[in-house]
Formats: sequence, structure tokens, C-alpha cells
Amino acid sequence: MKPGIPQGTRDFSPEVVRKRQYIFNTLRTIFELYGFQPLETPAMENLTTLTGKYGEEGDRLIFKVLNNGLHETTGDKRAKLEEEWAKVLSKAYSSPVVTERALRYDLTIPFARYVVMNHNDLALPFRRYQMQPVWRADRPQRGRYREFWQCDADVVGSKSLINEAELLGIYTTAFAQLGIPVAVKVNSRKLLQGLSELAGHPDKMMDITIALDKLDKIGWDGVVSELETKGVDAESAAKIQPVLHITGTNTERLDALAALFAGSESGLAGIAEIRETLHYYQLLHTDQQANGSEIVVDVSLARGLNYYTGVIVEVVCTHPNVAMGSIGGGGRYDDLTGLFGLKGLSGVGVSFGIDRIYDVIEQLNGFPTQLTSGAQVLILNFGGDNEAYALAILKQLRADGIAAEVYPDAAKFDKQMKYANKRGVRYVLLPGDDERAAGAVSVKNFETGSQQLVPLGELKSVLG
Amino acid sequence: MKPGIPQGTRDFSPEVVRKRQYIFNTLRTIFELYGFQPLETPAMENLTTLTGKYGEEGDRLIFKVLNNGLHETTGDKRAKLEEEWAKVLSKAYSSPVVTERALRYDLTIPFARYVVMNHNDLALPFRRYQMQPVWRADRPQRGRYREFWQCDADVVGSKSLINEAELLGIYTTAFAQLGIPVAVKVNSRKLLQGLSELAGHPDKMMDITIALDKLDKIGWDGVVSELETKGVDAESAAKIQPVLHITGTNTERLDALAALFAGSESGLAGIAEIRETLHYYQLLHTDQQANGSEIVVDVSLARGLNYYTGVIVEVVCTHPNVAMGSIGGGGRYDDLTGLFGLKGLSGVGVSFGIDRIYDVIEQLNGFPTQLTSGAQVLILNFGGDNEAYALAILKQLRADGIAAEVYPDAAKFDKQMKYANKRGVRYVLLPGDDERAAGAVSVKNFETGSQQLVPLGELKSVLG
Repeated sequence: MKPGIPQGTRDFSPEVVRKRQYIFNTLRTIFELYGFQPLETPAMENLTTLTGKYGEEGDRLIFKVLNNGLHETTGDKRAKLEEEWAKVLSKAYSSPVVTERALRYDLTIPFARYVVMNHNDLALPFRRYQMQPVWRADRPQRGRYREFWQCDADVVGSKSLINEAELLGIYTTAFAQLGIPVAVKVNSRKLLQGLSELAGHPDKMMDITIALDKLDKIGWDGVVSELETKGVDAESAAKIQPVLHITGTNTERLDALAALFAGSESGLAGIAEIRETLHYYQLLHTDQQANGSEIVVDVSLARGLNYYTGVIVEVVCTHPNVAMGSIGGGGRYDDLTGLFGLKGLSGVGVSFGIDRIYDVIEQLNGFPTQLTSGAQVLILNFGGDNEAYALAILKQLRADGIAAEVYPDAAKFDKQMKYANKRGVRYVLLPGDDERAAGAVSVKNFETGSQQLVPLGELKSVLG
Repeated sequence: MKPGIPQGTRDFSPEVVRKRQYIFNTLRTIFELYGFQPLETPAMENLTTLTGKYGEEGDRLIFKVLNNGLHETTGDKRAKLEEEWAKVLSKAYSSPVVTERALRYDLTIPFARYVVMNHNDLALPFRRYQMQPVWRADRPQRGRYREFWQCDADVVGSKSLINEAELLGIYTTAFAQLGIPVAVKVNSRKLLQGLSELAGHPDKMMDITIALDKLDKIGWDGVVSELETKGVDAESAAKIQPVLHITGTNTERLDALAALFAGSESGLAGIAEIRETLHYYQLLHTDQQANGSEIVVDVSLARGLNYYTGVIVEVVCTHPNVAMGSIGGGGRYDDLTGLFGLKGLSGVGVSFGIDRIYDVIEQLNGFPTQLTSGAQVLILNFGGDNEAYALAILKQLRADGIAAEVYPDAAKFDKQMKYANKRGVRYVLLPGDDERAAGAVSVKNFETGSQQLVPLGELKSVLG
């Protein structure tokens, strides 16, 4: 039997784990600096917590866990079980008798569920971050996995736009630290509502939003065609177009929008909340933090999820060598916890697309080089007294905080050197008879190829 | 609908996540110092990878994931599906047509599977550590969860006892750093084999091992009764007893054992490998590293898993206030990857019981106090110009690397102070009119109750 792993899942080798940890640690440090708190929820949720939250497509793509002990079911329950099995085979997809647990599908619904279960004990507003895997039974393809990591930061229980500004700051600070130049696009659902009023179809906000979301892919003509199928004729659609062509600085854009939306209450409210968000952002951040990044007001930004109600954001990498879709996004939602019976809690959050961010940093050669191999020092093992000498050196190095390993067997020299090469260490130490007699060790630098005899007392400064 | 989470799973609140991270980070730092490399494997494995690896009990306790798209199955395949469903309801527990994936049950089998899939690219010996959740459909009870974390370190591809010594060192170093006094019990499967020879039943090693494993629980009389049911009479069993009563230093114990096992090849081999392991351990470690911990040769240590072949170890906390079973264990196995067709790779590994270690540190009050609340500084929000002033202070603190947050709304003073209390911050900053006029801010220390006016230029030294 040749072993494998399920389609759409991945083993992360040591080098990859280290690079991923570098991303997680960078984000964690920033979240903590901004006063956000870590939360972790179980991989399995009750299926009832998840179903109906992600649309019909989502219900189908949730990984369901088979109940255990089914073989012990007897009598009436057994008959019931057969009946319920039919539901799994129908459009119902599931039955609690067959499957009552499912794998986490995103981090937002478990967060809402957690807030509802714990709101009496939580200090509100609650600012939390969460970095965990999620699972979806999507068709795997390049860059899309069945197990992938989400990383979310949300504030729940406050309507202040300071929260939006802080989340924008988390984005610009994080991507600056990760060495990724980005544009953080900002829009408001209220402006999109204003657009539908401008088009004379205030009831078609979602249709217009969904069509606009495809602007990059299908062009303006495509958007017009799609809108016509939704009952928005070309003449009405044309009223939207000028708004999408606004250029200039953010202030210039907002001023131009204010003129175009003069008659739309929603539109003006959207402009006002973007202005206030940017104002708070500027009070909180220096230009250095946003080094290489920019915040851009973009009325064409739509974002598909229909629970957003206020400011929405999306991050794209602006480096000319990188062609990648969105690497982050989020926005304000007014009543997420209402799904679980707790009304009136407003929230706002952003998400980091860890897998894509990883790919972008890789393309930009942006991972710190010292991440790749872990311990940089291998001590060869020449057996007998030289082995004991090797272990004494190893003990000293570790006491000095230098990660190191010894080849555990007195194997042939060639075999040990082959290991050193494959392992990718930087220094190989050769503790032979002569070295031992001299209280020193030969140090071979694999990068330069040079070799020198180093007294033990100087090892730390040579290797550290 | 009142939301909940599946039985045996847990939400980890911010404080708990931080404490867990402290354990993981402590272990990670030591693993890296010892030259071990991180590995992560998918939560879902092919069910065929897992079945048959954990005994019949294990097969039943594996969480299986229902295949997706079952509702789309038609025609002949539909009939087949019904047939296969019967297998799920039988002692077969599963069928690939209904469930072909399952949740990780431990970290050892996925590690073996990874080594077999990648052995051409791996530098052998491969030293890896892995810290990930596993899932078992066990009956939940106090301290036993359906989702829990394992943390393993293994070396595969080397028979050298230096590896055993390094793993012992990882144990003593880790528990010393975590502030847990422990006894690391050491034995060898070869000594257990010797015991069965001593009893005159060389073929009953596993029966004797399993009975001895219960010595703490059922006492010597219980062991004798159990052995009688396995065909080892009381007279034979009595030959083992003196071995279990050996005391003294490790050297004294080993000398006494050498005399008792004079006629047993296995027994002498076991004594020799323990001696060599302890010798290597002493070459590699100072007494300070094992501060509060001790390594104890213990012939009654059995460990249930039947894949161990050489040295076996187990860790128990020796603090008088802590009553807890094993918090770690491991040993050498000679052919783990043989399960997946790769013969002849010897391995040795140890495991840390993260959940129990967490409980022990909690009982000993051993978590660093600064872990509990994250950001220690809350800036109150008095609105208008004072809000802008609050944000300017926040910007300065973060630039100085001090984690801080502002209350995002200009809410009533009482409400903001109530938040500060519930949130558990250490300092509250009050930027009002007077403070702003003075270029300073009032700092209230929640621990001491004292309040002082601090010029902005001195904030860092007061809060840092």
C-alpha cells in the first residue's frame, strides 16, 4: 500500500512550517500591540451551528463527521437510522442521527457563537483575533485547498469608526512588516446603496453589488449585460458609470463623490463614514507604518457577502511582479450574533488570506533567510573519545543558546557530510584527535567553503 | 436556539490561549535548540492510513468524515452506496464509499506516513517535532477530551542511544523551564523480556508487561492474580518480585539488576542500554538543567503500547500537591514505518501531554503573571478634542512597542471604567481637558490604586 494524503490537503515540511510561523508571529505581535485578544474554537462544531449560515452551496461544502457507535444502534432506533440515512442522500445533505458534528467552515460563525455563549462574561467591546484552519469540500485547484488557514481580527460591541481605522492600521502595519506593498481599498455598503438610488433602483442594491463585484473580470459591458437580466436597463446602469471613473487623491475622490451623491442620503452617509474612518486612521498612524502601502477609496469595491452593512475593505498586492487576487478583506456587519439570538451587537472585522500571503512573500523572496533550516550547526561524530568530546562541545553550544545537533552515530565521514548537505546546515564542526588535543574544533563554513581551527572559548562568537 | 459546542471539545478563551502558547513556545524553543525540526500534517488523513493501526478499539474511536456529494450518487452507484452503508452499521464501522477520510488520531502514524512518502528527500536521521490537535470519540470525562493536543519529538533513522539521551534532556530541560518537578522513569523492553525469562515464561513478555503496567493500581496481589489467568503461576511470578524492590541510586539499581539478570541475555542487554543512555545523558547535561527533576531507573515501568522495542520512558510530576498520572512518555520502536512498506528504520520518540501539563502548571500557580491579560493599557475616551488627544497618545505608545487600546466610544465614565475592570488591564489613562492642556495624562494603576499625572515624554518609562 502506497500511502498518500487526501486531495486538497498538505503536509507542511519544516521549512514551510517555519515560514508560516513567521507570518503568524508577525500578525500575532501586531494584533497584541493593538490590544486584540486571541481566541481558539474547536475544529468540530455542532452541525446545527453551521448549517444555513453559508447559503445552500455552503451547506453542501461543509465536511460532516459521521456519528460514532452507529453499529451499536438496535431496534426502533435502527429503523429510524435507515430512514434518516435517506436524508443524507437527499438535498437535505445531512441528518443529526447520522451526523451531528461538522468541521469549522470559517472563523466568523464560531466567533459569533462564542460571543453569544459568553457575552455575560465578556468585556465589551470584545476585540479578538483567531488563526486556525478551516475545511471546505470545494473542488481543489491551484491555490485552493480543502484545508486552509484563516486569520481574522474582529471587534464586536462598538459602532465607533475608530475600530475601522484601527483595522486599516493593522493591515498597513502588517503588510509593511511582511514586505508586501499593498493597496487597501475602502468603500461603504451605504455608497453602494447610494449607487442603486442613483440608478433609480434603490431595491436592487444586492444585484448591483454582485454585478459590480465582477467588474475586473467581465468589464463594464459585462456588468451592463448582467444588470439588464436583473431588470436594470442600460440607461439606468449608465448613471452609475461616472462614479466608477473618479480619480485623484482620496480627498479629491470623496469631494467628487459628494457632488455626485448630493441627492442620496445613503450615499452621503457612506461618504461621511469613509471620511471619518480615514481621519481616525491619520490620527493613529504615521506614513512610515504604511511604507509601500496605500489606502484607496474605491466605489467599485463590492465584496460578495451580504451581511456587510457599513465600511468594507479589500487588500491587493501592488507589486508589478505579483498577479494575485485579494489577500485580505472585511467590513462592518450590524447583526452577526442575531443569528444565535443575541440582537443589537455591531461588529467589524478583517481577514488575512494566509496561503496567498505566503505565496506572495515567496514570489517576492521576502522570507528572512535564517528561517530556512533551524539549527545551523552540525557536529560530526568520530566515535570513542572524540564522540565524548563532540558531546561536550554540543553541551557548551546549547548552554550558550546556539541550536545545534550532533550526528548520532560514528558513521563514515562521507555519510555524515552528505547528511550535513541535505540538512542544509551552515556550519559543520569536526572534532577529531588533533582538535581534541588542542582544546579546539575545526569549523567548516558551508556558505564560504572556508575552514578554520577555533578554540572552544571562541566558538560562541564565531557561530553565534 | 441556544448555541453550544460538541461534548468533549473546548473554546479556549484569550487567557487560556496565552497560557497554552506559553507552553508551546517553551517546548518549541527547546526542540529547536536540540536541532529538531517542525512538521505539520493535515487534520484529515485517508481512512485507510489510520484503520488497523490503533487496535479494534481505536478503529471504533476514530472520527470518520462523511463523503461529500452523496446526494448526487445515482444508478448502480446508488445501489452500491446502500450496500456499503450496511458496512458502516456493522462491525466494519466504515466503508470508503460512505467515508474515505478521518480525523488525525495521534501524531505518530501521520509522522510514519510522512517519512515513507518523503524519505528520498529527507536527510536521515530525521529529527522532528509536531504539536497539533488529535481527535478521539472517547467518552468525555474530567481531563479527557475528544479534541486534545499532542506534542511529540521523534528521531527516525538512527539506532544510537545518543538520541535517547537527548530526548531525556529535552524532558528535564523542558519541565525545569516550566517549573514542574518531575521524575523521568526509564526502563527497557529488553529488561521486561528478561523478567519473563526470569519467571520461566519467555513467551509471555506482553502478558507480564500488561500486568505490571497495572502495579500502581491493583498492587502486587492483583498482578499475581492477573498473571495466573495468563498461565503464569504464583511461584513463577514470585521470581519477578525481588526485581521490583530494588532501591538506591541509578548506578546501585543497575548493579543490583546486573546480578539478578546474570543469566538473561535480554536482561543484560537492557541494563547495558540503560547504562549507555544515562552515560550519554550525563555527558550532555548539567545538573542545573534538571533542576528539581530526576531520572529514575524503574523496572516496573511497562507502557502499554506493544510497538516499543528498546528504552522506554515515562514522566510523572513529583510535587507533593499534585496528584496526576503520566504527563509524558515514549520509547524506541524498531519498525514503525514498516506499516507503510518502508522497512528497517529505527525510531525513538517522546510525547508531552499538553492538557495535563497545563493543569499541573495551573495547580502550581506556575504561569508567568504577565501572560493573563495581553494589552495592559487602556486609554479612556472623553470625546471631541480629547478623543484626538487619546489617539495621539495611543499612537505614541504603540510606536514605543507598548500594547495598548483606546475605548472606541466616548461612553459614560462608569461604563468605560467597568470595561477596564472586566478586561483586567493594569493601567488606565485619563486624557481630559486639564491633562491635554498640560501635555500629560493621568495614569491610574489598577493594582495599587494610585493615580499620577505623567508628562507624555515619561509615559514609556512609567508603563513599559
